[in-house]
Amino acid sequence: MFDNINIVLVNTSHPGNIGSTARAMGVMGFQNLSLVNPSDYPSEVATALAVGCTSILDEAKVFAKYTDAIEKNSVNIGFSARKRKESIPVMMINECTDYILSNTDLSFNVIFGNEKSGLSNQELLLCNYIVSIPTGDIYSSLNLSSAVQIFTYELFKNWLMNSSRKPNHKKIIDLASTGDKMHFYASLTELLESTNFINKKNHKSITKKLHILFNKAELENHELSILNGILTSIRKKINT
Amino acid sequence: MFDNINIVLVNTSHPGNIGSTARAMGVMGFQNLSLVNPSDYPSEVATALAVGCTSILDEAKVFAKYTDAIEKNSVNIGFSARKRKESIPVMMINECTDYILSNTDLSFNVIFGNEKSGLSNQELLLCNYIVSIPTGDIYSSLNLSSAVQIFTYELFKNWLMNSSRKPNHKKIIDLASTGDKMHFYASLTELLESTNFINKKNHKSITKKLHILFNKAELENHELSILNGILTSIRKKINT
Repeated sequence: MFDNINIVLVNTSHPGNIGSTARAMGVMGFQNLSLVNPSDYPSEVATALAVGCTSILDEAKVFAKYTDAIEKNSVNIGFSARKRKESIPVMMINECTDYILSNTDLSFNVIFGNEKSGLSNQELLLCNYIVSIPTGDIYSSLNLSSAVQIFTYELFKNWLMNSSRKPNHKKIIDLASTGDKMHFYASLTELLESTNFINKKNHKSITKKLHILFNKAELENHELSILNGILTSIRKKINT
Repeated sequence: MFDNINIVLVNTSHPGNIGSTARAMGVMGFQNLSLVNPSDYPSEVATALAVGCTSILDEAKVFAKYTDAIEKNSVNIGFSARKRKESIPVMMINECTDYILSNTDLSFNVIFGNEKSGLSNQELLLCNYIVSIPTGDIYSSLNLSSAVQIFTYELFKNWLMNSSRKPNHKKIIDLASTGDKMHFYASLTELLESTNFINKKNHKSITKKLHILFNKAELENHELSILNGILTSIRKKINT
């Protein structure tokens, strides 16, 4: 259950939140945890707060780079409190759980940022969707492991509710992996630098817009092959 | 908001859970907290974990006796992991939030027991309803403040959905017109014919796939400008 879901904590400051996250996952049937650049880990505090879910910590993967942590799975869902984020599609949490539960053939990274600063714009740029958890107006800073708890609870609850219903035959979508997409972005950027469409001045804004544009397309593997083939044909033509 | 709801923690062992509960309440717009016979309170640990919600701790009422803590409000809802509890009516958490939200004239105690042992049979006996939060089979022990967080989140989320408040930050999407998109497809096809990526044989299937790919992206006008700019830069490079 939920084997296709990887919870990713990025730049976590407090080891207690890592332990509490493991418990918040385990109690709702989640197992896969990735940690990007945690400040203090492994830690006795994390182990203590994981209580009966220390196996999740034992099997957690630790990465120095964000991109390495997310490259295997195809859909990246970033949790962010900030309301407006360029034009990366925003999902309500109910839409998010529906989407995950009706696409069991896809693999997901569900990504949570640092306690204070959340996910950076750069980190959000690799996300296909952003999800915000609704909070009150007066104080809106949700604890990190509470955010994970709300997500795992919502998904588990909806899975329970759905499991009594008939499975619907969904189209099988063969989404491209994050790693393969990043390779395409790199090739595209290189080509557009050679045509002077991308220069030092506009580099950041153009690559950002291209990321968003292709993320929205939810590229499948055969589509990524076409795009890579297009780049190859153009490079050849330029070099003749 | 939620002034008619009193969160009651009974025999709490760890002061950290009291602080985390305050934060879990504050972030969802709850204010009223009662503590029955806490082991270690007031406590610096509780204050630290309440973060921006220390006012909830400042105003929390501390009682030696359970009955004193719950006497003012009329409906007692006890959270309990154990499934069967004498013949006290059991509500699903959705039924619980519906009930509270459709009875704003009633006052509620929402009661959570000790971390290890939960609410005793004696304590449950004063409850009008028992609510269980669904958990997985392998490990089912939810952290105390996580349980409070799930309750406050569910109630707040359902209150938001019920209230007539419309989202005030609807994203304005400036979608490209079909005509402009067809112009782009024609330019792209022309370029790809010149690079031999598209030939007579694959013309139909490739153009179809490209249409689908870019349709999925729901191109906005500024994105179409970028794509057209890319084509122009490549054509120039090829012709130099």
